Amino acid sequence: MSGWTRKDLLGLEELSREELTLLLDQAKAFQEVSLRPIKKVPALRGRTVALCFLEPSTRTRTSFELAAKRLSADILQIQPASSSLVKGETILDTARTLEAMRVEIVVLRHNVSGVPAMVARAIGPSVINAGDGSHEHPTQGLVDLFTILEKKGRIAGLNVLIVGDILHSRVARSNLWGLSKLGARVTVCGPPTLIPQGIESLGAEVSYRLEEPLPKADVLIALRLQLERQKEQYIPSFREYSRLYGIDREKLKGAKPDLIVMHPGPVNRGLELSPEVADGPNSVILEQVTNGIAVRMAVLYLVAGARGERGSVCGRMSW
Amino acid sequence: MSGWTRKDLLGLEELSREELTLLLDQAKAFQEVSLRPIKKVPALRGRTVALCFLEPSTRTRTSFELAAKRLSADILQIQPASSSLVKGETILDTARTLEAMRVEIVVLRHNVSGVPAMVARAIGPSVINAGDGSHEHPTQGLVDLFTILEKKGRIAGLNVLIVGDILHSRVARSNLWGLSKLGARVTVCGPPTLIPQGIESLGAEVSYRLEEPLPKADVLIALRLQLERQKEQYIPSFREYSRLYGIDREKLKGAKPDLIVMHPGPVNRGLELSPEVADGPNSVILEQVTNGIAVRMAVLYLVAGARGERGSVCGRMSW
Amino acid sequence: MSGWTRKDLLGLEELSREELTLLLDQAKAFQEVSLRPIKKVPALRGRTVALCFLEPSTRTRTSFELAAKRLSADILQIQPASSSLVKGETILDTARTLEAMRVEIVVLRHNVSGVPAMVARAIGPSVINAGDGSHEHPTQGLVDLFTILEKKGRIAGLNVLIVGDILHSRVARSNLWGLSKLGARVTVCGPPTLIPQGIESLGAEVSYRLEEPLPKADVLIALRLQLERQKEQYIPSFREYSRLYGIDREKLKGAKPDLIVMHPGPVNRGLELSPEVADGPNSVILEQVTNGIAVRMAVLYLVAGARGERGSVCGRMSW
Repeated sequence: MSGWTRKDLLGLEELSREELTLLLDQAKAFQEVSLRPIKKVPALRGRTVALCFLEPSTRTRTSFELAAKRLSADILQIQPASSSLVKGETILDTARTLEAMRVEIVVLRHNVSGVPAMVARAIGPSVINAGDGSHEHPTQGLVDLFTILEKKGRIAGLNVLIVGDILHSRVARSNLWGLSKLGARVTVCGPPTLIPQGIESLGAEVSYRLEEPLPKADVLIALRLQLERQKEQYIPSFREYSRLYGIDREKLKGAKPDLIVMHPGPVNRGLELSPEVADGPNSVILEQVTNGIAVRMAVLYLVAGARGERGSVCGRMSW
Repeated sequence: MSGWTRKDLLGLEELSREELTLLLDQAKAFQEVSLRPIKKVPALRGRTVALCFLEPSTRTRTSFELAAKRLSADILQIQPASSSLVKGETILDTARTLEAMRVEIVVLRHNVSGVPAMVARAIGPSVINAGDGSHEHPTQGLVDLFTILEKKGRIAGLNVLIVGDILHSRVARSNLWGLSKLGARVTVCGPPTLIPQGIESLGAEVSYRLEEPLPKADVLIALRLQLERQKEQYIPSFREYSRLYGIDREKLKGAKPDLIVMHPGPVNRGLELSPEVADGPNSVILEQVTNGIAVRMAVLYLVAGARGERGSVCGRMSW
Repeated sequence: MSGWTRKDLLGLEELSREELTLLLDQAKAFQEVSLRPIKKVPALRGRTVALCFLEPSTRTRTSFELAAKRLSADILQIQPASSSLVKGETILDTARTLEAMRVEIVVLRHNVSGVPAMVARAIGPSVINAGDGSHEHPTQGLVDLFTILEKKGRIAGLNVLIVGDILHSRVARSNLWGLSKLGARVTVCGPPTLIPQGIESLGAEVSYRLEEPLPKADVLIALRLQLERQKEQYIPSFREYSRLYGIDREKLKGAKPDLIVMHPGPVNRGLELSPEVADGPNSVILEQVTNGIAVRMAVLYLVAGARGERGSVCGRMSW
């Protein structure tokens, strides 16, 4: 195939192996931009990217914001706090208003699964799903793929262990799609109440005890525990959860020495990861943050290109 | 006359027919910028525009923000939420602080009529009224003039019908001034409680029944109903209002086929307009949104020029 | 000495006389930028400045924002309102995340003294203290030094009188360090409950009665009174405070005619200063605001340069 043709990025489920590779290759090309003294290319100069985060998020929003700025795009922040536009209108009215203002790309986070896809069908601008309900968080999935590739040199054949709240996690879902398409063997692990039934049909093995899959894992992805889940009685107690599924130095003794530990952030220290593990030699959490910008630059750049609306990436800004 | 000479834009009441024409011509010249792949001209590069929206607004604020960005200006957002500056100081102190910071243009929305004019007298920077109390909303008035001109090719001699809460609407007031100066025949229509006494002296005819003026209208402007007005007993009930003054497909059967339907947004669907009308072939609501950016670019550009503080509009950005 | 070598600006206490002079000279060089029609130099183009104001502030934040924009930097706003990043993480996690995103400069305001210093030790990016607890507010101290120098031509040998809540004021502390290093004679004046014990060891004289030090003062700095201090019973009543320490036209009769009156803003009019004094011929409050941008440009520029991460200051932007 010659290049990216999709207007939108809604999930990793619908992407082919070739499309995933294209995104990762483009991210690799952008990785270098953030290492320059002048961290900017003119690729999206004069284009507008609207960041519509209708659920609070600073980490992902900031990552998209810097990605768009390093591509020289103009940015419009649409947040619920300041947003009579959002309150007084349906999300579709908001999206159509942004289209009428000639916004080229709408980055959308919403607490209801499927809203980005619905908006994408309704408007001409590109829509990038920045997390919808418990459906998908495709750019985080891509960040994880990219980080594994950087650290391990390959994805096919690796044993990847995803630990935590698989049931409610859009990150887990995007990871599962991306990793299995690129040939990794995925095991999910957590309390039975947090493992969805039928997950094996997505190609994942299931384990309820960390001790079993950990020794052979090359990559461990710890998911963030939403603290309100305890009230909903999905988790017996934080202490119990931490004892069984929290990763600490003791548990890592049984793991491969070159295991990499990932987390989408922010970490609840002492719950999903002990502080020594979160900051330890196996952790690549800060690399995930760094890679997040290159990956999101790639996504913005490719969807803009699919619509014929990006400039060339000059090697350097002209000053 | 040779050009624009006013430091501020406070209302359409004080503008001459020539000044209105100058603004509309300039907007026409900027309309093309938002159709380019690189939606930017360097006209206000290195100048600062402060957006002081002391009443919540996303639509108008976003429109000014994009207009300023497409002129390459720097933008300062001053919002009540984040604004100890606003809380701890009088609006005049805030304005003088912005002047001391060498801000060139202050775009000001305030819930009290006359505040932008008071600020404009006190400071050197240009002040643009983005809506003050129930006084004026001049850029919305200009957007409506521009949109009518685009769709009908002229304003003089047209029959324009404004429907809704005329009493509290700054949009209606700006529309009345602009339309009558440019030679349209204006009829206002709504419940008697929402029609101000003496409105005829502004050159408008009054009707309390939509059926009378609708058949001869070329343009219909439906105003947004502030939902709190029902509590204040200006409106018997939403159902009653909608039955008498809401525009639906049934009522449009008695109208000219080329009637254009306008609304400043956001629409309360089913109240002022039925969904089929809001999204139907007569509606030019999204064109109003699109035109809003060109019109606000023109306003920012002309007031900056009146102070000798704008650059030339190069045909293209240099990259 | 040849130039600035510090990664961070945490306080004026640790700066040498030479370093203070270097900062003030650089601010002088930038002062002219805000007088140009195109208020911009490309010195920090493609660099990112994060503004982390974890205490509300519009005035200082806006000043840093304009300073960074006039240096062509990209800006990231991290505010508590929108900040799950801040809530869900320790400030150190937030700072390390910003570092991983290749942010070069973190401007940090925090209500706990010492937090900027702790963050500065933990991360590679430059940290600029924008006010921490009751410790220091170094850029405000520099603004005051710069403004005195502009108006009086020198600092050494001047009599400077600081009036108000010395105990809780980080501005007073930074002023004391800066002024005494550059050879001014400082007197602090306020109610005994608001003067810290042992302040004489910092080289300040103490007075509890305004009448004594006022006649010989060349410079008067009125501090902002935090209104909640009355509840905490540090102040008998606002009326009493204003009668004894508020500066009005009557009290100024005993002062030198060329006394300059300063205030970090926003002024509680009628409390620290009467309106005629705040807006009168002795007041240089708006000049402080104007100078704030040049001073903060200098700080941003010098810390970036200490890390080899700034461009040259071209005389003009290339368009």
